Amino acid sequence: MKPPILATGAYQDLVPGDKHAFGSYRLDSAEIKEFAARWDPMPVHVDEAAAKASLFGGLTACGTHLLAIRVHLIQAHGVNPYVIASLGYEVKFLKPARSGDLLTLYVECASKRESKSRPGTGIVQLSCTLNNQADETVLSMMDTLMIKKSGK
Amino acid sequence: MKPPILATGAYQDLVPGDKHAFGSYRLDSAEIKEFAARWDPMPVHVDEAAAKASLFGGLTACGTHLLAIRVHLIQAHGVNPYVIASLGYEVKFLKPARSGDLLTLYVECASKRESKSRPGTGIVQLSCTLNNQADETVLSMMDTLMIKKSGK
Repeated sequence: MKPPILATGAYQDLVPGDKHAFGSYRLDSAEIKEFAARWDPMPVHVDEAAAKASLFGGLTACGTHLLAIRVHLIQAHGVNPYVIASLGYEVKFLKPARSGDLLTLYVECASKRESKSRPGTGIVQLSCTLNNQADETVLSMMDTLMIKKSGK
Repeated sequence: MKPPILATGAYQDLVPGDKHAFGSYRLDSAEIKEFAARWDPMPVHVDEAAAKASLFGGLTACGTHLLAIRVHLIQAHGVNPYVIASLGYEVKFLKPARSGDLLTLYVECASKRESKSRPGTGIVQLSCTLNNQADETVLSMMDTLMIKKSGK
């Protein structure tokens, strides 16, 4: 299957309003615990008994793990050679993500504008949501990217 | 050394304007490449020759790696039992973070308010910056947390 233009395009190729599903990722408890033990060892992420007794009622993935899964699902289509860097994110953690959840990433081009300071590049905002198998959004985020024009 | 109240406090203990250094983290190229190979394999994060030839002039850490280091430096003081969850982040990636950089985290309580929907809890905004050894900010972010009151 051809990767979506949102995953591979230069600045000129990206069209505000375009939206695409970017694939899915199955969360499992071993990975939830391994990631969190290294970076964010809250009991709700690393200790199944404590997580069960918490108001979440079970193990949840830490926020940075979900952000890592988001970028992984984008890069799984092949790294876009036009992307220079992310300038920033606005992130909302809306629902817990749990062991067994199948998370699907949707990406929409929210806006684009030419860079004033860097000719040959533009600023593109990608609105991303990570939804679980019940189509509930667990993570929504806006990623502001600096992207090259083609032919530059 | 006593951990800062910003790392351990309940809602009542946190005072807007309080600021504290939270410790430092040395980035190395092996970890930059390992993290990025798993989650965000852009050449500038995983391929030293390609990174050197890029406009960054060398290997840089991926954004999710920096966010993981940020939460690691907070949790290194001991997990705060009053923190329930993060509701969201606003993140700016301001400078590249490179192999060999010593990143120091500063955390300031930016605001607090009682939760209207959840009695016994409050919403606290922590303004966090990760600065390199030249005291340049590579990452700034606001983390909006739900935190329990003590005695609840």
